[in-house]
Amino acid sequence: MKILPPVFLELRGDAGAPLAVLGLPYDGTCSYRPGSRFGPRAIRDASWGLETYSPELDGDLQGSMVADLGDLDLPFGNTERALGEIGAAAREVAALGKRLLCLGGEHLVTLPLAEACREVHEGLVLLHFDAHSDLREDYLGERLSHASVIRRCVDRLGPDRVCQFGVRSGTRHEFDWMREHGTLYPATGEGVRRALARFDGPVYLSVDLDVFDPSVVPGTGTPEPGGIDYRRFVECMAELLTSGRAIAGADVVELSPPYDPSGISAVLGAKVARDLLIVMGARG
Amino acid sequence: MKILPPVFLELRGDAGAPLAVLGLPYDGTCSYRPGSRFGPRAIRDASWGLETYSPELDGDLQGSMVADLGDLDLPFGNTERALGEIGAAAREVAALGKRLLCLGGEHLVTLPLAEACREVHEGLVLLHFDAHSDLREDYLGERLSHASVIRRCVDRLGPDRVCQFGVRSGTRHEFDWMREHGTLYPATGEGVRRALARFDGPVYLSVDLDVFDPSVVPGTGTPEPGGIDYRRFVECMAELLTSGRAIAGADVVELSPPYDPSGISAVLGAKVARDLLIVMGARG
Amino acid sequence: MKILPPVFLELRGDAGAPLAVLGLPYDGTCSYRPGSRFGPRAIRDASWGLETYSPELDGDLQGSMVADLGDLDLPFGNTERALGEIGAAAREVAALGKRLLCLGGEHLVTLPLAEACREVHEGLVLLHFDAHSDLREDYLGERLSHASVIRRCVDRLGPDRVCQFGVRSGTRHEFDWMREHGTLYPATGEGVRRALARFDGPVYLSVDLDVFDPSVVPGTGTPEPGGIDYRRFVECMAELLTSGRAIAGADVVELSPPYDPSGISAVLGAKVARDLLIVMGARG
Amino acid sequence: MKILPPVFLELRGDAGAPLAVLGLPYDGTCSYRPGSRFGPRAIRDASWGLETYSPELDGDLQGSMVADLGDLDLPFGNTERALGEIGAAAREVAALGKRLLCLGGEHLVTLPLAEACREVHEGLVLLHFDAHSDLREDYLGERLSHASVIRRCVDRLGPDRVCQFGVRSGTRHEFDWMREHGTLYPATGEGVRRALARFDGPVYLSVDLDVFDPSVVPGTGTPEPGGIDYRRFVECMAELLTSGRAIAGADVVELSPPYDPSGISAVLGAKVARDLLIVMGARG
Amino acid sequence: MKILPPVFLELRGDAGAPLAVLGLPYDGTCSYRPGSRFGPRAIRDASWGLETYSPELDGDLQGSMVADLGDLDLPFGNTERALGEIGAAAREVAALGKRLLCLGGEHLVTLPLAEACREVHEGLVLLHFDAHSDLREDYLGERLSHASVIRRCVDRLGPDRVCQFGVRSGTRHEFDWMREHGTLYPATGEGVRRALARFDGPVYLSVDLDVFDPSVVPGTGTPEPGGIDYRRFVECMAELLTSGRAIAGADVVELSPPYDPSGISAVLGAKVARDLLIVMGARG
Amino acid sequence: MKILPPVFLELRGDAGAPLAVLGLPYDGTCSYRPGSRFGPRAIRDASWGLETYSPELDGDLQGSMVADLGDLDLPFGNTERALGEIGAAAREVAALGKRLLCLGGEHLVTLPLAEACREVHEGLVLLHFDAHSDLREDYLGERLSHASVIRRCVDRLGPDRVCQFGVRSGTRHEFDWMREHGTLYPATGEGVRRALARFDGPVYLSVDLDVFDPSVVPGTGTPEPGGIDYRRFVECMAELLTSGRAIAGADVVELSPPYDPSGISAVLGAKVARDLLIVMGARG
Repeated sequence: MKILPPVFLELRGDAGAPLAVLGLPYDGTCSYRPGSRFGPRAIRDASWGLETYSPELDGDLQGSMVADLGDLDLPFGNTERALGEIGAAAREVAALGKRLLCLGGEHLVTLPLAEACREVHEGLVLLHFDAHSDLREDYLGERLSHASVIRRCVDRLGPDRVCQFGVRSGTRHEFDWMREHGTLYPATGEGVRRALARFDGPVYLSVDLDVFDPSVVPGTGTPEPGGIDYRRFVECMAELLTSGRAIAGADVVELSPPYDPSGISAVLGAKVARDLLIVMGARG
Repeated sequence: MKILPPVFLELRGDAGAPLAVLGLPYDGTCSYRPGSRFGPRAIRDASWGLETYSPELDGDLQGSMVADLGDLDLPFGNTERALGEIGAAAREVAALGKRLLCLGGEHLVTLPLAEACREVHEGLVLLHFDAHSDLREDYLGERLSHASVIRRCVDRLGPDRVCQFGVRSGTRHEFDWMREHGTLYPATGEGVRRALARFDGPVYLSVDLDVFDPSVVPGTGTPEPGGIDYRRFVECMAELLTSGRAIAGADVVELSPPYDPSGISAVLGAKVARDLLIVMGARG
Repeated sequence: MKILPPVFLELRGDAGAPLAVLGLPYDGTCSYRPGSRFGPRAIRDASWGLETYSPELDGDLQGSMVADLGDLDLPFGNTERALGEIGAAAREVAALGKRLLCLGGEHLVTLPLAEACREVHEGLVLLHFDAHSDLREDYLGERLSHASVIRRCVDRLGPDRVCQFGVRSGTRHEFDWMREHGTLYPATGEGVRRALARFDGPVYLSVDLDVFDPSVVPGTGTPEPGGIDYRRFVECMAELLTSGRAIAGADVVELSPPYDPSGISAVLGAKVARDLLIVMGARG
Repeated sequence: MKILPPVFLELRGDAGAPLAVLGLPYDGTCSYRPGSRFGPRAIRDASWGLETYSPELDGDLQGSMVADLGDLDLPFGNTERALGEIGAAAREVAALGKRLLCLGGEHLVTLPLAEACREVHEGLVLLHFDAHSDLREDYLGERLSHASVIRRCVDRLGPDRVCQFGVRSGTRHEFDWMREHGTLYPATGEGVRRALARFDGPVYLSVDLDVFDPSVVPGTGTPEPGGIDYRRFVECMAELLTSGRAIAGADVVELSPPYDPSGISAVLGAKVARDLLIVMGARG
Repeated sequence: MKILPPVFLELRGDAGAPLAVLGLPYDGTCSYRPGSRFGPRAIRDASWGLETYSPELDGDLQGSMVADLGDLDLPFGNTERALGEIGAAAREVAALGKRLLCLGGEHLVTLPLAEACREVHEGLVLLHFDAHSDLREDYLGERLSHASVIRRCVDRLGPDRVCQFGVRSGTRHEFDWMREHGTLYPATGEGVRRALARFDGPVYLSVDLDVFDPSVVPGTGTPEPGGIDYRRFVECMAELLTSGRAIAGADVVELSPPYDPSGISAVLGAKVARDLLIVMGARG
Repeated sequence: MKILPPVFLELRGDAGAPLAVLGLPYDGTCSYRPGSRFGPRAIRDASWGLETYSPELDGDLQGSMVADLGDLDLPFGNTERALGEIGAAAREVAALGKRLLCLGGEHLVTLPLAEACREVHEGLVLLHFDAHSDLREDYLGERLSHASVIRRCVDRLGPDRVCQFGVRSGTRHEFDWMREHGTLYPATGEGVRRALARFDGPVYLSVDLDVFDPSVVPGTGTPEPGGIDYRRFVECMAELLTSGRAIAGADVVELSPPYDPSGISAVLGAKVARDLLIVMGARG
């Protein structure tokens, strides 16, 4: 009896797999349009319409060693506890020697993931693809918010270990800060090359799907016109793959399937996740 | 210049209005399908397709004194703080001598509303219309949850001051508790009559829209087949109106507009809100 | 080569057919949610999922003589001209000795249809199924409006030749008028029997689909909770069929497909149209 | 690490479980609105919003032994092969001594399931809940079609071992056949009692979700107005449970999630599946 | 108590504000897909997800003086009367010394707005961004139609005071006319520069949102493949801002929210409106 | 009486028309998201919002001779029979001396169409626009599948008579095959020029709408990020028109309207169909 498992791209991996996929269905601080809690499930479902082979990156997940760990079961209404559970899971996976690709969920999940990653990978650099700078000190009084997540990462990693790509929305104050600290790069292959040239060390890659144009990813919490398309993104990934830089961890966040009845946002999210696994070193 | 204000049923009322409408766009503990944060706006929009007159209750809001106070601006991710702000607002309105109809938002908002109401109205009885008993001690470890809200109200009011109508979903333990304490009534005129016969004192009325059948209110967070229709509801309201019992406060909660592209759930929610105002004593 | 024609229930009829179906894609005065202009097409499309046989009415359209005349091409923004074109078409069809079932479009189309019908059928009585009384003198200053259409019919036929079924929304003034003139009946077999007992003469039957509960017909311009279901409707039709009363004309109006992605409203509309043809005397 | 598996109602069961759930994502002969291939996944997802306890049946799946076998991976475009694979899987499960609840998928899947069931359970009786009689000899020339599935079952079981509940659509010929053979019963507790009184032997239970009114299950391939609601259905199930009759197998079919963005159809389907498991004897 | 007002970008302004926003919920002549009557509300709602600061234009509405006047309440079915009321309102606002940004509504609203604007601003030039030339003499016999609006403006302003950007749909006759009169420019910064070089005098700016590609604005009445994206639009606006040309009035029209469940069209419309205010001179 | 026929772009043509349009509502082998059976109807409906004139190709269908033959009525569940009926219809049309533009339906319909075309047009070359290579030997064991259709065409025409444009998804094996046989070209004017330079003889043009980016055509069975936009497509068509190459037949396939509530996919499909007719030589 041949059974369809609801896993990402038919990959299950085994205990020895060096890479793992984990879903984080949490959107508790989302202030505008919730629904990213349904992101992991939608990405797994949509992955069935995709091939395992990327002609642009010339990489194939067919037969690669990637374990799909399913989704965490997270509480709502208590952000600190939810982030604590995410961080604990990330450390558990790291202790097994695996590197992690997480499927969000809202962007705030990046904070415990990047923190756990930094404990294992010294000199970690955050590459941040996003429409929004997410650099607020707080949002409506809350310091733990999807609108403050990169500010909290900067608190921990320092501003000189954060590179931002594709940001096109923020307060005047946030843009002034980015210009002052030189964190902002264009979301192009050239932008990635310039950013990597400034840093050594392993990379944590966070992809907020609203870095894409809303026409490409309508199903997201805070769509912002003027974003990139898939070709531009894969150009960035090709640059990263070519650089040979170690990828310590990654996430794809802010997919909100209820806002996209066509499902194209989930397909895009799944394709981004597939490409991230290839860039992280999965190969068949 | 004649301008369309985005208020409920064209009513604004003035400083002296004895009744007030307030929106509570909060769904921070929703564990299944979020979106009730958009409830207040959707109810106001939908109210424009309704008449101010109810032929079943023979009451008319035309020219009545009801102030639309708009919506509270609430933070997400910190339930205690959000509930605190709701309670503070409710006390502020009560201090002005007004009685409040709130538009949710998730069911947890009932907790600070009922608490604030009880401070002013001694001997308050909670009439609870819902598909779910909401009597869990906690949900995924959280004591402040939409699935525990009535349990928290019972903690404060006592089990003998809570009447539940239309409940058809819960654990075996919850149903045992309801049978033991006699809190469960059918959602009929007769059920309301029997419940009122057991109590004196003013009433707080909480209407979780999932008490209706999902065919009638598809746009809700946790639809549960087997519910009532509008005629049954208005039969209950007519009974309450006839009883002459004082209504100290009320809420309509758990409308989640993103799950209903037809908009019929919002229309139903608006009609329920209109009827509640008539039952609360609004008249033109 | 077998071709699928986009006609109603596969029926085309021929020049001698005594019954005809005509679509009126007009919604120019709709004040709340437009879209009934797409009603005729949606009813035709949905009819393909239905059988030609009604077990409740024991009638079958299979092989019956009904001509599908397609849709009129109507201008928008000029109500008088649109109504003029509808009236002209109705007279043209009547001159051919055919009786007409029209697929709306908004309810205002009933006015020229009933007028044209009355010219041919003396002593015409209007049976009006609707959630709304549609008895306003004018709406936002316009006398030709979907909210005034029955008032305009009363102007022409007289109040004693109008029977209203299922009305549950209106101003207090409209309800007072209906009570005074005795035009209001319940939408039941018994209600139809009582109404028919008061009148001789042929019947014009106008079915505003919002007479059904919004759960049954979510795709309509002004949904109003508390309506009937299909079984109640077919009970009324069975009563009418049994009465043997001549049906001079009929319409099904206010289907607004854009508000119902499930398509069940169109299916219901098509089934109502099928039943109306059976009641009008179509038989295979 | 606590992981959310995508199973039905959190139940996995183990090797010794006497009951099993299997999804059949096939809709290859659907002639009107496809999409029931997505039914099994949607039912599993929706089951998370339900309780394991049924107050109407006073049964609880909490801790019961039910194995979720996932979904079969079926080919499209070749009906015979697909049905062959379904039959083979059913026999494999039966050989393990398990009774099967299948989640469709289109109604045609009932044919190989009932056949495999009859091989093990002598004197099998088919209880068929449906809006349509599904008794055509063929549909557009195909004998294996969702519109012919009960005719094919009659070919194998004989007309006196088939009971049909809730049928309200068919050709005049099909209704004549049902009247002649006495297969048609009302979908009520009384109807179930009368049907069971005529037969001994184990029961195969097939629930086409379009037996429900389209307002209750808009997400189905061929919605037909005039159906039952959930309360009527659970009344039938309570009668069956009381009868103590052995249930040899069951299915829930024709859920088409793409036509219901509200998701209430999937919730209803999941609740029906939960109730069927209780009636089949699952208990915690 | 902090209340969420349903205004555009949180700006209310005061009596002395030099700029004002006014909604025109009218779509009475729309011949294809209605719904732009819901445009103003949707733009206000969507504006809450945007920042007040534009990094491309380096302008910020934070603290600027812009009054949100709400929406006009317009009748349907009588185009002349509706246009009359819009013109009267525009003159009323102009008499207060304010310049107006209007949120449509269908494109025909531009006619009374441009007329009223020309009475105050001599030598007015119309800059028209649109997929369609809108140059028909009449449409289905009506001279006042969304498909004729620019022709009517040409009647009043003369062909040499109209510049069209992004037009890609029309009859051969309309394209011949545009080529003959030289009214057609590419929707680029260079195109705007070339157009402005030909004229002195103040500008009225009309943005039909279907100038954008349907992927960017799916929610519009008459989507036309092949349009521009947001970056191209903001490039045009930057050119206009740099030119220092006075903007006498502006509108954003043809947003039809019912056709876009993702809401990205409304977000784009709100961002365009924000940018127009910055170009019109709003600054914090 | 002016009637709206449900035809493509108002064109009916007559018996002598050299071009014909035929709909093929079949999606029986679709493995992921069905719905392309509704493609022909949606393309016809959407064509009403388009002009007959293409400014890019400077061609006009106004008054041209094109017969709309409606849709074939095809069985489901038996692929061989369906393809047989399509082939028979294509030969019937060819025998009348007409060239055919078909509206799919799934991509597998191209196989009988290209076969029938080759019988009449010697040396036929297939130009294939698609996101997917469709070169599998079989899919889930079926050799007749939408995922194998081009492989089956290669079986008949030979690999040197197939040119593929815009392919960006496939197995590594498929890409190796395309590189080996040189069948893959970029979807640009230059790509078309290079391909045409290699071949003489008439062209069969197959446009799988998923060659477009999912943002442009969300309503398709297997969306694949990274595709072309309309401008790129019309650039290809202009090149083909300029080449003067004879077009023996064409199809537009894989439009799945249920996945696009905005309708922009159908509008794009209709515009592609319009352009194909112009390229095929229709002129007014």
